[in-house]
Amino acid sequence: MTETNPLIRLARRPTGIPTTEDLVYEEAPVPQPAPGEVLVRNRFLSLDPYMRGRMNDVKSYAPPVALGAVMEGQSVGQVVSGPGFEPGTWVLGGRGWQHYCSVPPHLLVPVDAEAAPPSAYLGVLGMPGTTAWVGCTEIAPVKPGETFVVAAASGAVGAVAGQIARRMGARVVGIAGGAEKCAYVRDELGFDACVDHRGEDLPAALAEACPRGIDVYFENVGGAVQRAVWPLLNPFARVAMCGMVAEYNDGTPAPGPNLMSAVRNKLSIRGFIVGDHPRQFPVWRETGARWLREGVLTYREDVVHGLRNAPGAFAGLLSGKNFGKLVVALD
Amino acid sequence: MTETNPLIRLARRPTGIPTTEDLVYEEAPVPQPAPGEVLVRNRFLSLDPYMRGRMNDVKSYAPPVALGAVMEGQSVGQVVSGPGFEPGTWVLGGRGWQHYCSVPPHLLVPVDAEAAPPSAYLGVLGMPGTTAWVGCTEIAPVKPGETFVVAAASGAVGAVAGQIARRMGARVVGIAGGAEKCAYVRDELGFDACVDHRGEDLPAALAEACPRGIDVYFENVGGAVQRAVWPLLNPFARVAMCGMVAEYNDGTPAPGPNLMSAVRNKLSIRGFIVGDHPRQFPVWRETGARWLREGVLTYREDVVHGLRNAPGAFAGLLSGKNFGKLVVALD
Repeated sequence: MTETNPLIRLARRPTGIPTTEDLVYEEAPVPQPAPGEVLVRNRFLSLDPYMRGRMNDVKSYAPPVALGAVMEGQSVGQVVSGPGFEPGTWVLGGRGWQHYCSVPPHLLVPVDAEAAPPSAYLGVLGMPGTTAWVGCTEIAPVKPGETFVVAAASGAVGAVAGQIARRMGARVVGIAGGAEKCAYVRDELGFDACVDHRGEDLPAALAEACPRGIDVYFENVGGAVQRAVWPLLNPFARVAMCGMVAEYNDGTPAPGPNLMSAVRNKLSIRGFIVGDHPRQFPVWRETGARWLREGVLTYREDVVHGLRNAPGAFAGLLSGKNFGKLVVALD
Repeated sequence: MTETNPLIRLARRPTGIPTTEDLVYEEAPVPQPAPGEVLVRNRFLSLDPYMRGRMNDVKSYAPPVALGAVMEGQSVGQVVSGPGFEPGTWVLGGRGWQHYCSVPPHLLVPVDAEAAPPSAYLGVLGMPGTTAWVGCTEIAPVKPGETFVVAAASGAVGAVAGQIARRMGARVVGIAGGAEKCAYVRDELGFDACVDHRGEDLPAALAEACPRGIDVYFENVGGAVQRAVWPLLNPFARVAMCGMVAEYNDGTPAPGPNLMSAVRNKLSIRGFIVGDHPRQFPVWRETGARWLREGVLTYREDVVHGLRNAPGAFAGLLSGKNFGKLVVALD
């Protein structure tokens, strides 16, 4: 083969927002698949906030990416060769920020490129969508008539969470950055309200949008948004926590809320990682695909072209510059 | 009647630890029961940390005590007169820091003074014991072999919580203030270990006592103990929170833990108020009384004599000076 394998390595552990000195582009030979493995040509790479945590050398729910290794990530792609798959088959399970990868066949999930565009399996039907599904149905179920609040409401997780909560009968309030995103959340996603966290007085605006307080908060940003939400939590409110992207670049963790609030309001605060709920992935993939066909689930992608642009796009994701699920088309 | 009704009023909202200028002793006439009500001679008054919150004029799960009103509290006592009870009957449900009270009969629960000493219905079999029971069985159940940690381990709630958790098969580690209390927790209550929070290096001592981390933390103190516990919480750890007595005199709430810890470790943090679980009171009263008879449940009371001494005893409770469930004998 004369073709190469463009890839991005973690050359250095970033301080704050990662740069192209931390995430270095290079071209390597196309991997030779190990016996029994499948060679996949990745077509779309998913960029997700959790990746920032993997760049740090700290204990977390998953080990960090080793220095010098290809950055970790999930792709949808097409089989080039290997046992058990027709060449050209669309599969989920490609690995790494790179064009080609060699994967054991049991880790690949064929996806129906007719039911939804392949990139949707990375977002609305994939890990972020399943995170929303698990959070809304298992971790912090919302009851009809209750107020449900989700931050990063135009993002990959928030957009799906709000739409699920609305189908469950909740009054849904989003929080997003900027007028354009807020309009999208209200008008396209059908949330009951959306508050701009870049506005002047977030606590006041959120209180106004939630006149009966907050019964369920789906947390994925932390920081100032979390501080604005906390005083509005109702007795017996539930908080589902899947991440705190606003704080991922902080060197020292900021203090959290005094937990006497949890006693006074009998709060239930539950952190979760979607990977601990593997059986929900196919459940949501089917449910979400059906809702897409029925036209009751909406999503938006922010597609960046070319692997060279992935580090910059990822830096933008951490500061809220993307609009919709961020994917890199590996043209 | 020539007898008077000694009582204690909330004369002023305290700053920090309450004094006898906040909690003022006086003698009033014995109340005339309203028609249909029962006159009760309170014999033992329960002093509990939650009372500190009722002295502040802030929104919480229960309204504050009005300025000038008799301080709120629960007693066991004996019926003097009134419908539906033989005079002399021991009842739970007397109200206020006072010798006499007039109570609607449906709020009185007759207690079996043969099955346990009457004061036990304020502590091990009463509100604190039921708090321990609800926390261990409903809010944060512990599994056999897991490590269960409870603070204020020689106190009214902690002592019972640890003994219940041990019966559920957990390895139980207490935290208490001073060598005498720690020895009691280990030797009399049968905890597997007890750490002195007044020792030199609480985080290190706690880590040593919990070599496999902490699976369930029963929180009733907050402050430095909470900060020592947090880094030891295992993946999927559960935190049952019924109070944070170490912080009740603080003017401004101290910051809490950064909640990214809840995501990383998939924590479940649940605040609760035992009053929301009314059906558990009789369940625990019967279960606990049976365990007392069988000799498998131990408790200790710190009995202070005379209502005049209640404010000083309450101040001591907030700084850990009591040893066992604090009650005032209304001699």
